[in-house]
Amino acid sequence: MDSVSLSEVTVIRRTHLGFMHSFRQPFSGVPISLKFSSSKGARAISSSITNNTKSHQFVYGERISATSDSGYKINGVVNIKSRTMISSVKERLLLDATDDQYGGVIVDHRKLPSNPYAFASMLRASLTDWRRKGKKGVWLKLPVEQSELVPIAVKEGFEYHHAEKGYVMLTYWIPEEEPSMLPANASHQVGVGGFVLNQHKEVLVVQEKYCAPSITGLWKLPTGFINESEEIFSGAVREVKEETGVDTEFSEVIAFRHAHNVAFEKSDLFFICMLRPLSDKIIIDDLEIKAAKWMPLVEFVEQPMIREDKMFKRVIEICEARLRHCYCGLSPHRLVSTFDGRPSSLYYNVVNDENDPSHSNCIADYL
Amino acid sequence: MDSVSLSEVTVIRRTHLGFMHSFRQPFSGVPISLKFSSSKGARAISSSITNNTKSHQFVYGERISATSDSGYKINGVVNIKSRTMISSVKERLLLDATDDQYGGVIVDHRKLPSNPYAFASMLRASLTDWRRKGKKGVWLKLPVEQSELVPIAVKEGFEYHHAEKGYVMLTYWIPEEEPSMLPANASHQVGVGGFVLNQHKEVLVVQEKYCAPSITGLWKLPTGFINESEEIFSGAVREVKEETGVDTEFSEVIAFRHAHNVAFEKSDLFFICMLRPLSDKIIIDDLEIKAAKWMPLVEFVEQPMIREDKMFKRVIEICEARLRHCYCGLSPHRLVSTFDGRPSSLYYNVVNDENDPSHSNCIADYL
Repeated sequence: MDSVSLSEVTVIRRTHLGFMHSFRQPFSGVPISLKFSSSKGARAISSSITNNTKSHQFVYGERISATSDSGYKINGVVNIKSRTMISSVKERLLLDATDDQYGGVIVDHRKLPSNPYAFASMLRASLTDWRRKGKKGVWLKLPVEQSELVPIAVKEGFEYHHAEKGYVMLTYWIPEEEPSMLPANASHQVGVGGFVLNQHKEVLVVQEKYCAPSITGLWKLPTGFINESEEIFSGAVREVKEETGVDTEFSEVIAFRHAHNVAFEKSDLFFICMLRPLSDKIIIDDLEIKAAKWMPLVEFVEQPMIREDKMFKRVIEICEARLRHCYCGLSPHRLVSTFDGRPSSLYYNVVNDENDPSHSNCIADYL
Repeated sequence: MDSVSLSEVTVIRRTHLGFMHSFRQPFSGVPISLKFSSSKGARAISSSITNNTKSHQFVYGERISATSDSGYKINGVVNIKSRTMISSVKERLLLDATDDQYGGVIVDHRKLPSNPYAFASMLRASLTDWRRKGKKGVWLKLPVEQSELVPIAVKEGFEYHHAEKGYVMLTYWIPEEEPSMLPANASHQVGVGGFVLNQHKEVLVVQEKYCAPSITGLWKLPTGFINESEEIFSGAVREVKEETGVDTEFSEVIAFRHAHNVAFEKSDLFFICMLRPLSDKIIIDDLEIKAAKWMPLVEFVEQPMIREDKMFKRVIEICEARLRHCYCGLSPHRLVSTFDGRPSSLYYNVVNDENDPSHSNCIADYL
């Protein structure tokens, strides 16, 4: 299981926490000590809860007798003895959880019972408790090592929220009279394309190994997805280097494209970047790329599939305008906001300054 | 279960399929008829596979006898009779799946067996078959209604890839000698903030209901996440309307911020948008917003938390420069690429045209 601190799963609401807000680390979660730990929590909770939990214990006691005391196994899903279960339920009545600052609770995934029966019982008792306390959203992260708990949570009414290699996150919205205010899952993938032109007016192009048959033979710009937590500017440089072996320096984002339902019904933001070449020798990445070369810009643009495509034509016009100093791209500026102390990149044109006209992206030379 | 067509789960590779590539619908998946349907598939496969599957059948036959023929139930995870199981395994030896164009296979989630034993047996037999055929990535989408299959797939070595409300997607990378080329999950959430200034030089600001104690009392721009498949330009207009009741018209993206590890370890792209007001009456959204008002720009900027924040100061400078026609924002242009016929938005400055100097975002009036 990936090591994940509690603050990383701490959550969130619908309103974007960006400008003027995410700066303030609203995800820090502020654990407000409503801990339901087995020993301490059980003593702290009210008698009504204790009674409530007891009744669940009884229900599960009945189920055990139905399966006898022999224990069984199916593909690792269940492998317990009922005696273990009973003692486990007795020891831990409610799941360990902390409050979030939006009226919800976050179950502590590091303290989940390994016993599915105990989990089922505790989850149900906890839901009753959270409902009684007026809690709203419940966040339940199940590590991949405890995948046998997934169907149990689903059966209790939990929904999938998102998943990463090491876990699946499930949620439950308690208030029946209110629409769910839980924030959505990540919605976008982000790609970059590199427009790299050398002093001979040749553009760096590739042919991909895996592509739809209809574009076989087309020379295109090197493109790729940015990696987790990678910057757009460094992602573009990396992709060009990986696919073609050419070193470059980031110049500007000159445009971006927003499209929907691209992969897994997610949206796609694609940033078209101008990069200055720092080397010219081509060494292709055999896994992804069939061929790469420096191609005269005129020849590149004359490819029928590009000539006939409105979007691509416009992008080439923009790149050419940029070379003639008739277009302003966006440059990244590293700025730490005092709101959250988080370093981030703000992409913008340099503001024209009447006292210093050279202070503009449009005027800066590309090569 | 959400209704999802096969093409929607059809997949993908690491290289970004954006510019010049995703235009070509590389996700259409081109089912190359390698169907493993129960009746036809079983006849088509080689005898070695048939033998292999038989041996699995034997293994599972043993497991059944260990649990007797009585059937059992645990929280809905398993509720079968062994006789049903055996006949089911006999009927369907391999999972229904189609090839993708990258050497992988996509299991048909509409034809998964409902019986967990049968699923376990067929999944194992299918993996053996795919391995023998030199297949690479396996995509297995498990609808929420069949969550009891999740621990079985995990036990076979599948990893979580992503999840949405109605399903969890698992993957398996077969070649041991090659690094996984499967594309990553969605990596970003996208937010928008609206800078709305009226003719009295007042900016539209809000105070949020849920915020870190340290920024209580701060007046900020309306912000929010864009919805699934929503445009940046319409998302900004919607958020301003929802939070403040004010109608606006989108003008430009003037800058964007890229930050990492924001929620669920995902990255965040936040687009700062200038919007023209079309109405002035304020009606706040009680669920998210505590207060909203038109605030003199000077007063807004003078708030200590804004005055002392480098990033925010820069954004205000940009907005002010834009009002003085000294800055170019990016405008969306709807363009359908012939590559995929997909309508999408390309955001760019209007290219300066020497013959028509008015043809520029910088010169266009804001109000």
